[in-house]
Amino acid sequence: MTEKQITDLVKEVIEALPENSISLIKANELIAAVFAKAKEMGVRAVAAVADKHTNPVSVQCMRDSYIASYDIAFNKAYTVTALKMPTSALKNLAAPGGSLYGIQFTNSGKIVIFGGGVPLYGKNGDIIGGLGVSGGSEEQDTALAEYGARWLSENL
Amino acid sequence: MTEKQITDLVKEVIEALPENSISLIKANELIAAVFAKAKEMGVRAVAAVADKHTNPVSVQCMRDSYIASYDIAFNKAYTVTALKMPTSALKNLAAPGGSLYGIQFTNSGKIVIFGGGVPLYGKNGDIIGGLGVSGGSEEQDTALAEYGARWLSENL
Amino acid sequence: MTEKQITDLVKEVIEALPENSISLIKANELIAAVFAKAKEMGVRAVAAVADKHTNPVSVQCMRDSYIASYDIAFNKAYTVTALKMPTSALKNLAAPGGSLYGIQFTNSGKIVIFGGGVPLYGKNGDIIGGLGVSGGSEEQDTALAEYGARWLSENL
Amino acid sequence: MTEKQITDLVKEVIEALPENSISLIKANELIAAVFAKAKEMGVRAVAAVADKHTNPVSVQCMRDSYIASYDIAFNKAYTVTALKMPTSALKNLAAPGGSLYGIQFTNSGKIVIFGGGVPLYGKNGDIIGGLGVSGGSEEQDTALAEYGARWLSENL
Repeated sequence: MTEKQITDLVKEVIEALPENSISLIKANELIAAVFAKAKEMGVRAVAAVADKHTNPVSVQCMRDSYIASYDIAFNKAYTVTALKMPTSALKNLAAPGGSLYGIQFTNSGKIVIFGGGVPLYGKNGDIIGGLGVSGGSEEQDTALAEYGARWLSENL
Repeated sequence: MTEKQITDLVKEVIEALPENSISLIKANELIAAVFAKAKEMGVRAVAAVADKHTNPVSVQCMRDSYIASYDIAFNKAYTVTALKMPTSALKNLAAPGGSLYGIQFTNSGKIVIFGGGVPLYGKNGDIIGGLGVSGGSEEQDTALAEYGARWLSENL
Repeated sequence: MTEKQITDLVKEVIEALPENSISLIKANELIAAVFAKAKEMGVRAVAAVADKHTNPVSVQCMRDSYIASYDIAFNKAYTVTALKMPTSALKNLAAPGGSLYGIQFTNSGKIVIFGGGVPLYGKNGDIIGGLGVSGGSEEQDTALAEYGARWLSENL
Repeated sequence: MTEKQITDLVKEVIEALPENSISLIKANELIAAVFAKAKEMGVRAVAAVADKHTNPVSVQCMRDSYIASYDIAFNKAYTVTALKMPTSALKNLAAPGGSLYGIQFTNSGKIVIFGGGVPLYGKNGDIIGGLGVSGGSEEQDTALAEYGARWLSENL
């Protein structure tokens, strides 16, 4: 085997490895970025980051954010890692008549079906966690969550 | 500094301070006023007052009110302080097709999405607590909660 | 029948009727009496009054009382009406080795097995409700609950 | 009034004001300090900071900490702000034979009765929040929580 062949093989193996969940350090940086944006937008947000197994990594609350937002942000991060899709995608699926109508009742009330939660992707495109944001209007929460996902993809 | 300037400065500082949550004495007076109105309207009501951090201050039940109304009134007071809006405002937001459809499931069933809960405001316009009323029709509960909020604003 | 005989008969019938649960007005007076005593003792208390069917009548929190005391006082009032005995009587019965060991797990965590809850008796000796007090030491809560029961017996 | 007198008066007033709850920035610094210490000790910890009203401010999990530790740390932070004492103080009180035996069941399972939770005090000695640590042995969690409280008192 040439050195080139070995290098290529190693790269291939690394790419085939499952990516680790987002780290605590990166989760905290991500939340700081989301909160800086929220401040700009005049939103008092709660942000939650879950690992790829739905377990929480970091959940933080801006001063005077809605007390209800803690559970909502937390559950959004759960939802996107448990179902591997943004919470906004569940909006229609879970509406009366939708193909997943009722999913909001199946997991002890932890499935959130409105915007503000997005999966987080690693360098290889694997899901490495989830971000849930709550505190503004649905549009603001969705914008903040998408901003966070973009920020992470540029700062991994 | 003149005495006048000092007085003005102190007044300004006091107004800038965050207001305290509603007191127990005031909460009990408020509930008495709401119950007097409920009696006039022929409603047997439960009324709950929460402080601005969602914790209960006083919860009282008129004789022969619905037993289910205790949890409902209590949760209405939770909802309005946790989300800083009247429960009637959630009605459309949480309806199928609304931007927050599903929020009724996200907080362990504590979010009430029909009328009868209103935030309570202090002299400076800060939220100092929340009032939840249950026992009549939705219209009656809403009317009683709004009556209570008005009564408080005139009796602080 | 003479008038005297009729009067005696009516009295007898009235005494044989089951007594009503404690009224909201009386429950509020009772809580005010307990809080006045608590203030004297330097305790910041929560007091809960249940009717004889275990349902709440009035629950009130002194400023800066323990937040945990709300559930505890409420559950003490439930316990004494559900089991028709003071919570202090459960202390030994529910201890490991006691005849009711395990009762603290059977009712969704609503059975309190330390002092501070007492049944409330009407003029005929029937249970007309229950009082739960929380906020001080167990001795203080027990003293306050017993004070409340005595106060009520003298002010019915 | 001399300027000196005014300054003294203002200082006195400020000291008499109730202190604010711990800020998000300070809570995150505190958790970082606790995690640095945990790393030294070889513990993978979860740390939770609640405000003085029991509501969460920041909850963070070191990589590969126990998944169960999230709820435990969170509930320790709840317990110490709801009961204004370290969780280690409840150990004896809540043991069979203790005056509060059974308190572990009264608040929907949120009261933690082993070490690892401590109240956090502000400059004036008021409780400004609570810290819950979980992930090591009870001795380690207690040591970490106490380390955190000391760290905060030196870094306010």
